[in-house]
Amino acid sequence: MQKIESHASFGGTQEVWQHASSTLGCDMKFAVYLPPQAADGPCPVLYWLSGLTCTEQNFITKAGAQQHAAEHGLILVAPDTSPRGEGVPDGDGYDLGLGAGFYLNATRAPWDTHYRMHDYVVDELPALVDAHFPTTTARGISGHSMGGHGALVLALRNPGRYRSVSAFSPIVAPSRVPWGEKAFTAYLGDDRDAWKAWDACELVRDAGQRVELLVDQGDADEFLEEQLRPELLREACGVAGHSVQLRMQPGYDHSYYFIASFIGDHLAHHARALKG
Amino acid sequence: MQKIESHASFGGTQEVWQHASSTLGCDMKFAVYLPPQAADGPCPVLYWLSGLTCTEQNFITKAGAQQHAAEHGLILVAPDTSPRGEGVPDGDGYDLGLGAGFYLNATRAPWDTHYRMHDYVVDELPALVDAHFPTTTARGISGHSMGGHGALVLALRNPGRYRSVSAFSPIVAPSRVPWGEKAFTAYLGDDRDAWKAWDACELVRDAGQRVELLVDQGDADEFLEEQLRPELLREACGVAGHSVQLRMQPGYDHSYYFIASFIGDHLAHHARALKG
Repeated sequence: MQKIESHASFGGTQEVWQHASSTLGCDMKFAVYLPPQAADGPCPVLYWLSGLTCTEQNFITKAGAQQHAAEHGLILVAPDTSPRGEGVPDGDGYDLGLGAGFYLNATRAPWDTHYRMHDYVVDELPALVDAHFPTTTARGISGHSMGGHGALVLALRNPGRYRSVSAFSPIVAPSRVPWGEKAFTAYLGDDRDAWKAWDACELVRDAGQRVELLVDQGDADEFLEEQLRPELLREACGVAGHSVQLRMQPGYDHSYYFIASFIGDHLAHHARALKG
Repeated sequence: MQKIESHASFGGTQEVWQHASSTLGCDMKFAVYLPPQAADGPCPVLYWLSGLTCTEQNFITKAGAQQHAAEHGLILVAPDTSPRGEGVPDGDGYDLGLGAGFYLNATRAPWDTHYRMHDYVVDELPALVDAHFPTTTARGISGHSMGGHGALVLALRNPGRYRSVSAFSPIVAPSRVPWGEKAFTAYLGDDRDAWKAWDACELVRDAGQRVELLVDQGDADEFLEEQLRPELLREACGVAGHSVQLRMQPGYDHSYYFIASFIGDHLAHHARALKG
């Protein structure tokens, strides 16, 4: 594992690391923010999953999360959004293949060799992070858009793994929207029953855990009606009796300007759960 | 003048506008952040000048300034760093020509037609901003690296124009460092006497105003020794009796991670002067 970037930031350090991933069969980069408190002892970790087209860079350069992580003593870990490099297949368009891993384990060729982002984010990456950085066992997860889908799905699929969950503008029902239908057809095949294991609105029905889902959604988001449809999550949670706090934020769009405006709220939410 | 971007941000709006600049002879973009207070009445304006290679985008996506502008009720205006477009000459390398206007009025061909960033930032842009947005007459100026040079030089050349001045990692003595020598030779010619009018360490000797200069500089900045040399500003201010607060920040580099870590301090500093 090799450190390829390091910048002082709010009294801590914003780093980027590269390593050979056995799960994904390629080299991967991830970003880690170490707050000042990490110099004195272990800190909880918040995993951040980014959206379509992003790399490990978008969140760390645009979200303004470091100041809040420094305030609360949280380590932030932001992986890339897909496997990368020679031999990794790509799709047509920005919404399939590179930059569009959808945080699942693909079962169909040619994707099934490398596209195993669920196992990478849930198992390999935390093992690596815990081995190299001063972490406690308390983990939270959050993300944006495709990464909001990832945060919800990873938390719902892995009860007890994450103490706190939040999402910005998540794809809550990928089985029922164009982005998800395209990706799931490619990665998982035509059998829609197999899609349920990767759809937050399906998973919430049988969720083994009851961690509250905090969701922020801008009502001026250009993808709201066609791709995001947060009301489906509210309905599914209502039926299942699962706790969800869905906040419609007037005037906000799908950009990092939205994330930056509310990331402080989210980090405070995670800090309460992770340090409590 | 045409609005080409608009995003809700911390209760206000981050916009990008495009207009035909008569000073520069080309179309220009600039960013403007309107804090929530601008909906109720006029607000002071802080001008931000970016560094080499930047456009109007870098500051608004990476610095995290909007939250502080929203807190203090400041309008933020961030222009591009050079004229742009067809017919505008470019130089060799990132440090001359496009993205490298150095906030001066060029006097040598082929630069003298378009490269008049001083007059654009001091005169044309504020007139445009004041005509279109709810501004008070209180103006401050800040910037980074080449833009830190710009902030210091514009404030020192135009006494009474800016009530507050600050800079991150500024080029304080362009006449004596490689970046400045290359740019000044091209834009102003070989006569080094003509350079003095665009060099903060020279201007401070005869400054007609006594506005304190607030300067933050990371001591792990990769350009510190060769290009920035803040000690020359401290010396020049000492000789001239000009007030300067130069803060060396341990461990910080030249990146926006550094700017983001201290932009809150700078905006509080400007707000005290602009709203006092």
